[in-house]
Amino acid sequence: MPTYTAPVKDLQFVLHDVLNISASDIPGYDELDADFTNAVLEEAGKLTGEVLAPLNVVGDQEGCRLENGVVYTPTGFKAAFEQVKEGGWPGLDMPEEYGGQNMPQVLGTAVGEMFSSSNQAFTMYQGLTHGAAAAILAHGTDEQKNKWLPNMVSCEWTGTMNLTEPHCGTDLGLMRTKAEPQDNGSYKITGQKIFISAGDHDMADNIVHLVLAKVPGGPDGIKGVSLFIVPKFLVDDEGSIGARNGVSVGSIEEKMGIHGNSTCVLNYDDAEGYLLGDLNKGMRAMFTMMNEARLGVGMQGLSAAEVAYQNAVDYAKDRLQGRAVTGVENPEGPADPLIVHPDIRRSLMDQKSFVEAGRAFILWGAKLLDASHRKGDKDADGLVSLMTPVIKGFLTDEGYDMTVKAQQVYGGHGYIEEHGMSQFTRDARIAMIYEGANGVQALDLVGRKLAADGGKHVMAFFELVKTFCKENGEDEALKDFVGPLKAASKDLQAAGMYFMQAGMKNPNDALSGSNDFMHLFGHVCLGLMWAQMAKAANVALEAGAEDKDFYETKLTTGRYYMARRLPATGMHLARIQSGGDTVMALAADQF
Amino acid sequence: MPTYTAPVKDLQFVLHDVLNISASDIPGYDELDADFTNAVLEEAGKLTGEVLAPLNVVGDQEGCRLENGVVYTPTGFKAAFEQVKEGGWPGLDMPEEYGGQNMPQVLGTAVGEMFSSSNQAFTMYQGLTHGAAAAILAHGTDEQKNKWLPNMVSCEWTGTMNLTEPHCGTDLGLMRTKAEPQDNGSYKITGQKIFISAGDHDMADNIVHLVLAKVPGGPDGIKGVSLFIVPKFLVDDEGSIGARNGVSVGSIEEKMGIHGNSTCVLNYDDAEGYLLGDLNKGMRAMFTMMNEARLGVGMQGLSAAEVAYQNAVDYAKDRLQGRAVTGVENPEGPADPLIVHPDIRRSLMDQKSFVEAGRAFILWGAKLLDASHRKGDKDADGLVSLMTPVIKGFLTDEGYDMTVKAQQVYGGHGYIEEHGMSQFTRDARIAMIYEGANGVQALDLVGRKLAADGGKHVMAFFELVKTFCKENGEDEALKDFVGPLKAASKDLQAAGMYFMQAGMKNPNDALSGSNDFMHLFGHVCLGLMWAQMAKAANVALEAGAEDKDFYETKLTTGRYYMARRLPATGMHLARIQSGGDTVMALAADQF
Repeated sequence: MPTYTAPVKDLQFVLHDVLNISASDIPGYDELDADFTNAVLEEAGKLTGEVLAPLNVVGDQEGCRLENGVVYTPTGFKAAFEQVKEGGWPGLDMPEEYGGQNMPQVLGTAVGEMFSSSNQAFTMYQGLTHGAAAAILAHGTDEQKNKWLPNMVSCEWTGTMNLTEPHCGTDLGLMRTKAEPQDNGSYKITGQKIFISAGDHDMADNIVHLVLAKVPGGPDGIKGVSLFIVPKFLVDDEGSIGARNGVSVGSIEEKMGIHGNSTCVLNYDDAEGYLLGDLNKGMRAMFTMMNEARLGVGMQGLSAAEVAYQNAVDYAKDRLQGRAVTGVENPEGPADPLIVHPDIRRSLMDQKSFVEAGRAFILWGAKLLDASHRKGDKDADGLVSLMTPVIKGFLTDEGYDMTVKAQQVYGGHGYIEEHGMSQFTRDARIAMIYEGANGVQALDLVGRKLAADGGKHVMAFFELVKTFCKENGEDEALKDFVGPLKAASKDLQAAGMYFMQAGMKNPNDALSGSNDFMHLFGHVCLGLMWAQMAKAANVALEAGAEDKDFYETKLTTGRYYMARRLPATGMHLARIQSGGDTVMALAADQF
Repeated sequence: MPTYTAPVKDLQFVLHDVLNISASDIPGYDELDADFTNAVLEEAGKLTGEVLAPLNVVGDQEGCRLENGVVYTPTGFKAAFEQVKEGGWPGLDMPEEYGGQNMPQVLGTAVGEMFSSSNQAFTMYQGLTHGAAAAILAHGTDEQKNKWLPNMVSCEWTGTMNLTEPHCGTDLGLMRTKAEPQDNGSYKITGQKIFISAGDHDMADNIVHLVLAKVPGGPDGIKGVSLFIVPKFLVDDEGSIGARNGVSVGSIEEKMGIHGNSTCVLNYDDAEGYLLGDLNKGMRAMFTMMNEARLGVGMQGLSAAEVAYQNAVDYAKDRLQGRAVTGVENPEGPADPLIVHPDIRRSLMDQKSFVEAGRAFILWGAKLLDASHRKGDKDADGLVSLMTPVIKGFLTDEGYDMTVKAQQVYGGHGYIEEHGMSQFTRDARIAMIYEGANGVQALDLVGRKLAADGGKHVMAFFELVKTFCKENGEDEALKDFVGPLKAASKDLQAAGMYFMQAGMKNPNDALSGSNDFMHLFGHVCLGLMWAQMAKAANVALEAGAEDKDFYETKLTTGRYYMARRLPATGMHLARIQSGGDTVMALAADQF
């Protein structure tokens, strides 16, 4: 069975050596000294490693089942959920007034990585609740907040997000679910929603569905969509649970992975609902939390890669097969461990160098979100908005590939379910799809974010890279980092320039390269992370840090990324610059 | 449910317009005129599309089950297997003297693609039989051939290959299964074999296991391994089936995919076996058929990509979602079909341009094998041996990626099992692993094939590319092809040069780049295929071919590959040239 050990040390390195969070002036960050974050991370590490990780395979094998309208989660999930609630984890970064601990998102994100690595399907129950609670927090009336939030912050009640319908996913303007206004100010919701994660289950007393629907007579398309709170059980003014509402589970979807999460078809039949936010502004309300939600999904790519990598390393050290090409390394054994073989190392280094930089990238994003939310830093907000599709799209695409590489290390043993490596890939696959499929992320990046505010934020990004390269260009200890970063950034700028010129003439020329641009951007971001991490490692080494080995390993891993992964930027640029002609040339029936 | 339509026209194009098989002087090719191959392909297309494809999902969902020692295949498999046998398909390229039709491998490969596309798990039952029969054909005594082959060629009896044991996969020298010689010349086989595809089932009267085992007292390691014929039921001299032999099914493996194939743990307990080929030369006997077997697995990568692509195209044309960025294209509908969106097209073009060139690559490989086997062409044999790891490793790596891309076109509907897109990826995943994991293919390519016969075959490959470029460099109609091919080939040569220089000093420098070299080589091969196909398309167009549209589509698709896919060679070269330092630098405990 696969295991999971929380990467506390590496998270601490990013938080303190790289992002230097406790020295930041973001409100709440002063509490985050190394001892404090260490204590939190250790505790979360224990829970996730010892309680949630062992349930990961159980969830996959048992799945959820629907019996007489009731959804049952896999063995052990309910007890584990109680432990998670008792620890107060769901409310870690929620406001104190609703029972949360008001920690910054950067810490919630570090903890979230562990939860997601250990058991993605399980973690989604609280993840969706978090998202729904955040939407109510942002758009609810005081009455709504007081009524729903305390139980959601504690996860006594969980939450869901209801967007998709059978005939509409990305294009929500096609939505058919109706909300009929009632005399008492409430609405009657009727329609079918599909792919509803954590849609129903036996772990909470109530489920608070956030449902997008159209009020008849409103504007056509996306402009007529509103957001509603629709509880599974009605709740009276004293907060007591009352009658069952008109929402039922049609079925549980059979999926490729995340079997431990109940992905439901939900049927709404005159269900009582309450408008959340403004009428016909449902999309805005749903998407206020978009950057956070997409960062959370990006993290799933990273976290899946992390746990898959950990197990691949263990296997590569244990499994004896063949001899090192440069001479026997395990003379007492019948063969050398897999890890002596260059191609196995190539794969492990791909994974390691991705995971560590991805972690820094995500936590940097979370820090920017904190700066935006906690001190109204508009530049931080613009920058993280720009990078959000990259975090989501690039980290989940790459994260998935890394789980496939980890699985490959196991050979045939990776293909059978026994070792759990197949599950990591099957679970990771969804992150490329939900919360906006990665093609939509790429479109958002190229079609919207790049030019937002007159291109100000992308210029700020380039400036950041340029400044780093300028300030550290003479540092001999960083020579393996600054040069490649500069070259990769140049590719990114050339691609941006191409879009500005070609995209003006024909948007297809730009959009044909959107996926490549997202990946090109992602590589530059991870290159920047590696350069910054290398600098932090050098600083620590010069300061005579105790754990020399940790920092030297960091530098070696970074050098690998710069030498082996970053050259992808040239390929992406070439593809982008080839334009849209070959992409768009065929008529539909020529495919 | 997904569907499958055999690409008869495209196969015909490759066989006749590109490879010009009927004009070839390979014995047996004179029969292969366009009418004949068309008739065969149409017939195979009907069977695979109408009978096997509908069973693909059934096989996935039901899987195989073991009850009281008996393995049952999924509903419908047995009846379909009868149809396949009645059609004589298993013996298509087998010798007439054993009941086969003696067709060249190039035709068997074209038909094989269809079988594999329509139902990979099902097709493996006959695929393994074919492999085992080929080994007996090559190494058996006349008595053995007469005893086993007729029933195997007809698939009345099926076959298996038994290599892997729990502790040894690639490194077969660690094998523990024993073969004790008996007085009557037979052997008693005892041991456990795992991952045995088609290991047991209810579709044949007998199963002929080919088992690698060690005769006690023989040489250590791989040099003491022999190959044995071990039937499920003993067969007397008259060919009648007798007593059950000492081989039983321990369990059926739970796998990520190919559920319709019974992958078994087989326990041998004093099972009667018969030496096949020479004592202690088991590996040689098993691997005589290696090029064919690996070409067959490479084809699975391609065939999975083909069927996934077909369904992705259908979905992209049907599913209405969003509007084209350049203006509404489906004004009567509520939205435009997905296929209007550039990033969806980018994905479909990736798939289409891969599949069509991969098909040509495989069939070229099969033609070279025919030239080797049927007229003893040593150069053809050397060239196909060189390219075999590329065919297997590159086409299965890329093929898998393409199924993931096809799945992505479906968005959330690709993640649920209902549409069958998840199955294509889960099934395709195994091809990267079995018949030598792709890391082993890359090692074989760089560590062995490149330098084989003093590098003669790789030089021949370069010469081939060079000649094409020289002969067609002035052809304006091929300018989008020759230039990129030349550049990609230059990258490949530079990589080869690097290996020769660096690899001499430290083999780790070469082997660290082995995976990249395999992919670089693969891209150049597909680039060459596209250049040749473009030339053939131009010839047809100039000759006033009827189906202009087909040939023009071919040219456009090829231009896409040259512009968008071929630039990967530069990235692979950069990685290769970065050497082994960053790959090998970490100690095992630093991972």
